[in-house]
This record gives sequence, C-alpha cells and structure tokens, in this order.
Amino acid sequence: MNYAVILAGGKGIRFWPLSRQEEPKQLLKIFGNYSLLQHTYLRISKIIPARNVYVVTNKDYDEAIRYQLKELGFCLDNIIVEISPKNTAASIGLVAKIIQEKDPDGVMAVFPADHFIKKENVFSAILKKSFALAKLNTMLIFGIKPLRAESAYGYIKINKKVSPLKRIAFKVEKFIEKPKLGLAENLIKQGTVYWNGGIFIWKASVLLEKIKKFMPRLYSVLGEKNKKSLTRKWNALDSVSIDYGIMEKCKDSLYVAPLDCGWTDLGNWNTIDFVLNRDKNKNAIYGDVLTLNTKNTTVWGGHHLVVAMGLKDMIIADTPDALLVCPKEQAQRVSEVVDILKARKRFEYMTPRLVNRPWGRYFVLNDTGRFKTKMVEVEPHRRLSLQLHQRRAEHWIVVEGIAKVTIGNKTYFVKSNESIYVPRGQRHRIENNENHKLTFIEVQTGSYLGEDDIERFEDDFERLKSHKNKN
Amino acid sequence: MNYAVILAGGKGIRFWPLSRQEEPKQLLKIFGNYSLLQHTYLRISKIIPARNVYVVTNKDYDEAIRYQLKELGFCLDNIIVEISPKNTAASIGLVAKIIQEKDPDGVMAVFPADHFIKKENVFSAILKKSFALAKLNTMLIFGIKPLRAESAYGYIKINKKVSPLKRIAFKVEKFIEKPKLGLAENLIKQGTVYWNGGIFIWKASVLLEKIKKFMPRLYSVLGEKNKKSLTRKWNALDSVSIDYGIMEKCKDSLYVAPLDCGWTDLGNWNTIDFVLNRDKNKNAIYGDVLTLNTKNTTVWGGHHLVVAMGLKDMIIADTPDALLVCPKEQAQRVSEVVDILKARKRFEYMTPRLVNRPWGRYFVLNDTGRFKTKMVEVEPHRRLSLQLHQRRAEHWIVVEGIAKVTIGNKTYFVKSNESIYVPRGQRHRIENNENHKLTFIEVQTGSYLGEDDIERFEDDFERLKSHKNKN
Repeated sequence: MNYAVILAGGKGIRFWPLSRQEEPKQLLKIFGNYSLLQHTYLRISKIIPARNVYVVTNKDYDEAIRYQLKELGFCLDNIIVEISPKNTAASIGLVAKIIQEKDPDGVMAVFPADHFIKKENVFSAILKKSFALAKLNTMLIFGIKPLRAESAYGYIKINKKVSPLKRIAFKVEKFIEKPKLGLAENLIKQGTVYWNGGIFIWKASVLLEKIKKFMPRLYSVLGEKNKKSLTRKWNALDSVSIDYGIMEKCKDSLYVAPLDCGWTDLGNWNTIDFVLNRDKNKNAIYGDVLTLNTKNTTVWGGHHLVVAMGLKDMIIADTPDALLVCPKEQAQRVSEVVDILKARKRFEYMTPRLVNRPWGRYFVLNDTGRFKTKMVEVEPHRRLSLQLHQRRAEHWIVVEGIAKVTIGNKTYFVKSNESIYVPRGQRHRIENNENHKLTFIEVQTGSYLGEDDIERFEDDFERLKSHKNKN
Repeated sequence: MNYAVILAGGKGIRFWPLSRQEEPKQLLKIFGNYSLLQHTYLRISKIIPARNVYVVTNKDYDEAIRYQLKELGFCLDNIIVEISPKNTAASIGLVAKIIQEKDPDGVMAVFPADHFIKKENVFSAILKKSFALAKLNTMLIFGIKPLRAESAYGYIKINKKVSPLKRIAFKVEKFIEKPKLGLAENLIKQGTVYWNGGIFIWKASVLLEKIKKFMPRLYSVLGEKNKKSLTRKWNALDSVSIDYGIMEKCKDSLYVAPLDCGWTDLGNWNTIDFVLNRDKNKNAIYGDVLTLNTKNTTVWGGHHLVVAMGLKDMIIADTPDALLVCPKEQAQRVSEVVDILKARKRFEYMTPRLVNRPWGRYFVLNDTGRFKTKMVEVEPHRRLSLQLHQRRAEHWIVVEGIAKVTIGNKTYFVKSNESIYVPRGQRHRIENNENHKLTFIEVQTGSYLGEDDIERFEDDFERLKSHKNKN
C-alpha cells in the first residue's frame, strides 16, 4: 500500500511578522481558505487514502494541527507528536517504523507541509509513477526544475550517461548544498541539476535498512519499546537532516524524478513572489497597497493602507501588531529579528493579533493591560468551551447574528445590537446555533487579562486535557 | 505696540500619513503635549501679550484651532478666518489692515505655525531687538543660518559691504529661490546667505504701503467695507506669496536679522530628523522601533512594533490606518500620494484614526461598515455635547473612571466594568465630572455609522452652529 508523511514541525520564522511561534508558516491561511498544511494534505489525499496519511509535528503545533485537519476529514490518530524536535531524519524514521510494522511492504512518500504547487495534475501524475517505481525498492527524490540561480537551496546533479529508470528517474551523481550564486548559475546552464525539494518516496523497509546502516543510534531508538527509555534516548539524539544523515551517504542507490509543476517552497519572504501575481513592475502585492515608482518589491498588507513610493527590491510585511521593512537580499536574516524579539520577551514573536480557533477566530482590537477589546467571530453551529475566568469580567455586544449565551444555570438569546455581562468567576458559554456567522465585541476588565486565565468544563475540540489553555 | 501674526492655514500634506486634511501638521501634537501651533503661540506669548497675537486660518481648521488655543488662554476673537485661502500675501495683508486700523504705528511680526525652534532664548532676544528696529520703519526678515545645502528652501544673499543696521541687520542683496544642490553648496561656502524662514517684522503701515504699490488689487480688497463685494473680490484674488508679491519687489529696503536658534521648518518627513534625537547610526526614531543594520533612516512608529533591517536613507511613517515607506530623496513627493488618495476618495487622506476633540479624543478600533468600535477618552471635568443619532444605537462599556450619562430625561452613573445602552433616536450625553480620565468602549450598530449623523442640542465648545458636525 501507499502511504504519505507530511512533515509539519517547522517553525518557519523567516515569515515573521506573518508567522509566529504560535502560528507557524504551515498553519497560515495565506492562500484562500486553507493553510499550507491543509493544501498539502488535500493535494495528497487525492491519491492516498486518509487513513494512510501521517502528519509529524511537535507539542507546540499538535493542537492547532488537530483543528485544521479535523475540518478535512483527516484521521486524527495519524498525527504523530515527537517527544522533542530532532530534525527530519528522526521524524521520517519514526513514521517509517510505524508504517513498516503495519505494512512491511508499504511505500511512503515524504512531503514538507509548507510547499506551494501550482500544477497539481503534473504533480499527481509524477507521484503515481514514483510510487510504482518505489515498489521495486527504488529510493526516489523529487527533483524540482530550477527556475533561477538560488543559493539557499540544495542541488542534485544527475548522471545523464546512465539511461533513466522507466524513462522518468535519473541516477544521482552528487548533492551540492547551497552553492554560491555563480556556481548555481553554472550548474543550471549545464542542465543536469535539480533542486532538492525535500520530497522523497521509498519503501519504509528500504529506508529503515539505510537508517540501520548509516544512523544506527537512531535505528536503535526507533526500536525501543520502553516508553521511559525511549524518551531518554530520543532526547539524547543529535538533530540530523535526512539529507545529511541518509541521502548523501547512499547517493549511489538514489534516483531523481524530475518535477516541473510550479513548485515553490515558502522559505522566506522572497519566495512569496513566485506565488503572488506580480504587476507590470514586478511588484508582488497582497492587500490594500498603493505603489508609486516602485519595482520588484514585495508588499504584504491586508490590515490597512500601505503606500510604497520609490522603492526597489524591498520587502514590506505589515500585520496589525508588527511591521517589517527590509531589502530582499536580507530576507534570510528575518530569523535574527525573531531571535531578538524572543530574547526581549516581546509578545510579537509569539502570538498573532488575529488568532484562529477551532470555533472561529478573534482579533485583539486593543489591549492596554487594564482592559482589552476583541472582535470575536463564531462560525455557524460552533461554540466556545464552557469556561470560567477567575480574574476578569466580560461584556459581550452582539453586532451580527444571534448568540445563545449560558451564564451559570441560565440561558439567554442575545441578538444583534444587544449586550450581556459575564461576571468574574461565573461559568459561561457562547454558541452560534444559526446558519450565519456570529460576531460580537468583547470588552474584558479585571486585574489580569491573560489568555491563560481560563478553566474549561466542556469543549467540542478536545482541549480539556491540553497543556495549553485557550478559548 | 507690538503684534504677532501666526499663519496657520497650511495643509502640510507632505507629513502624510501623520497629517491629514482634518488634522494638518500645525495641529499635530508631535512634540509632547502641545501642537506646533500651540508651541508657536507659547513661544511668542512670552514677548507679546495674548490680545495682540492674531492667528490666520481658513474654515477647515477654524474649529480645531479654536479648541487648541482656548486651552492656552488665547483671545479667540483674534482668530481670523479667511474667506478662502489666497496664500501668504493676502493673509498677512488682512491682519496688517486690522492692526493698522487699531494702532496706526503697530509693529507686526509674522510667524508660520509649523516651525520648531530649539533655543527659545536666542529667538526671543533677536525678536526683541528686531521689534525695536522695525519701529524705525525697517522691514526685517529673519535669516536662518544654513546648516546644510538644501534645495527646498529660499535663500537670501546679504550685502556685506554695507555695515549692518544696529549691528544686527544686514541689507538684502538678492533672493535665490530653491537653488540646485551645487549652487546651494557654493552659496553656503561664501558665508553670505541665509535661509528665508518666512518670519518677518515690520510696521503694519509700512507693509500696507508696499502692498499699495506692488499689489494694488489686494490693497483695494483689504479696504473693501461691503461684505458681499469683499467676498466676491477676495475669491477673485490670485494666490500670491508674500515673498513673490512683496519681498522680492522691495528687496532694496529689506534687512536680514540672522538667527541661529536651532530652527527647523517641518516641511516634509526629512525635516523631522533635525528635531528628533538621532542614534549613533543617524537614525531618527519615534515609537516602538527596532533597527538592525540600518543607517540615516527616519522611522515614525508609535502604534505598533516596527522593525527596520538593512535600510539606508529611508523613511517609514506608520500610523494606525496607513503606512508610508519611501526613500528620503522622495520626501517631497508625498504630496502626490495625498493627491491620489484624494482623487480616489480614500478616507485616509482626510481623517486620522485617532481623532482629537475639545473634550478628549477617540480612537477607531475597527469599522466594518456594519458596526464600529471606538475607544473614547474624556478628560476630567469635560463632557460631550447633548446629542442624538437618527440611524445608530450605541453601547458604552466604561473601563476607567465614572461616567455621568444622560439618556432622555434620566441620569445614570456608570462605573468601570458597567455598561449602558443608548437607543437610536434618544437624546444623550456623557460627562466626566471626576478628577481622573474617563475611558469607555463604544460599539455602534445601525444602518449608517458616519460621524455626520449627529444633532447637537447643547455644547460646551461652541459647535452648535459649526458647519461641521462632530461629537
């Protein structure tokens, strides 16, 4: 049988301020109604049945991933939460072990959660052919046709002298990690290189053989049955990528399946240019943006008017609580900004102003420390948990739809242009039983207004036991 | 007697998005608790009694100027509202006529409302000496010592061969309007030029003689007693600056009083660099800003975190509803942005998100068209007008202080963490009778949420007859 593994543990901090610690790149709904993770799952689930798709992540994103995949009919038992993040070799090995135990001949395809693919039919066709090849014990990497000299990627040089397997898969000659721009240009001219997009297909058993040979410590950890010593040993593992730990070491048995499907990894702000439509001056624009005399500039707006005048090769990334302006050539250095903000304990590295929840979303309108105002949207037929706050009271003014509100033992129906008061220390719940969105303004007052002042008694989204507390 | 005229009719659009049509540069409280206009008045009122200070403006700013000057004990009768804006020659002539009729020997000093002066004592000393000279019928211009080659200013070349009047005032040789950068550099090297800062001192009667000679049409309009034909003739006047209309034509009788007082006109975003403290990389920063590898860049933040990375010679001006990013060399072109926004009927050229009112201020937290949320602050012992809205209801949640609320014939005291509802079509008023600020969140719902849906019945700020309707 065929299986898929989606790697969804990355932080994607180079997309700050759009991505945050609590909302990494793969969970952002940048393109329409779905996140990158959701797009990845939907793309794969056309070929592989839901019960055979695994998602690997870590504790930080477990809950958010659960909400996003539940919407799409994903099998939630297939979310694998790592004990701690140990890079891709360990993540992939972990799922390979699970698949092999279930289906010793299972073939697994590995996909990062944060890729964008324009031509899905091209992608699907190659994927099917690749599964067939992997059944013959071939180890395959997808090779992305390079569109430009790019020094941030790994390159795979193929051996053109050997005729391709089944006409589609070329033997790997060597890997070239992040070449300088000049070298990258030369490689592309030779026409025998591909980008390593991190998409792999192989039998779980074949990979585990390689892990046994090249990463014996990891192999032994994967076989550990005792939970306590598994945790200890896992935490002691080195962080090693699958490329470094396995691929480079067994390159002679590797094949490249070339792929020309409008692929883009979303690695940093520069890559978004290949996804957004560009205007005649090559500006990539999102949101309410006015450009004058501006070229080859990326502007991510969306929450208010942005005017870019006289700019060239710049990035402007604006969000309701943080703005970044830098030249494109410094896009890779955004991670340094995040490091600084984290060291300074700034909330802006952590939580976005617009927070998605399984029942809808809220937007912090202002937060003075003494009071906080939110706009809260509840999707039709969803409800927040039955909850209580020890240190704050809440005023709710319904502005759209009808809310069913429970306070203590009483139930009220609050319509648009009506309000209700939730005293401190009272059990309460708000529900949207209508077919239309419910929107209300919440004004919080109290001695402490942190999101962690919450006790939950009932929840539709399995958050009662969560290590985090949220609405 | 000595008089002062403050010219406060300018739009200052080159400070967009900080300045707006409804809140021009001179009314912005950029430096501490006072606006540029207020600073200008306070600076002058140390030397000239309040009853002798006039402010000229136009209908657009009349109301706002009234509030700002009332706070400082200014004589409100001395606000001169022009029939229509006709540039500085007409504005100054208008006040010259008023002063001359009141005091035929009166000496008047003319000040733009939007200048920043660091060394007020130096300024005051020169001002006093200049008044003394002007009493002898001398026409004086203040000459600002040039600090850099600047092609946006007018230059005055002095005649060093003629010995200075009373040792302080030099004869004017010629005016050089906005020289190219190279010429400006040469002029400054010669050491005989000053910037024309638009500060003039002369007897009202002396100026009027010059207007009679060089601008006879304006002179005749100033003498017009019939209100109707005055309006007609005023509107038919050409817009002419005092520099072009008078100064250049009578340069032989002009003297320059040099001034080295840390002067800056606030003409565009570049000039703010001379007011803000600059860091070791020459960045001029306001607000919550993180700079990395950034030089000689101006960042105006203040409403959320701004990160500037890898920038040089740039301007970032961020406000709650609009952001501008441009290189410093394009600072003069900000007016083009405003023109475009105006043509597109965008509210962002018109109204700021934080709106100052005589009773306090409000900040629009969100405005979806279907509902609007504001944070409203009322200063101690102030109150809004007694008012009514035909098309919207309002929910008020008090978050700080105590509100006295009148709805219809009833009065309520609403404390922090309490709320009250104002139905559509009901007369209402909110008052702060306490010694501390009152803050409340207002949620508006209704079929129309424009600020002009207001009927006023009583007002502490003389706004009942205003052509504009505002809270």
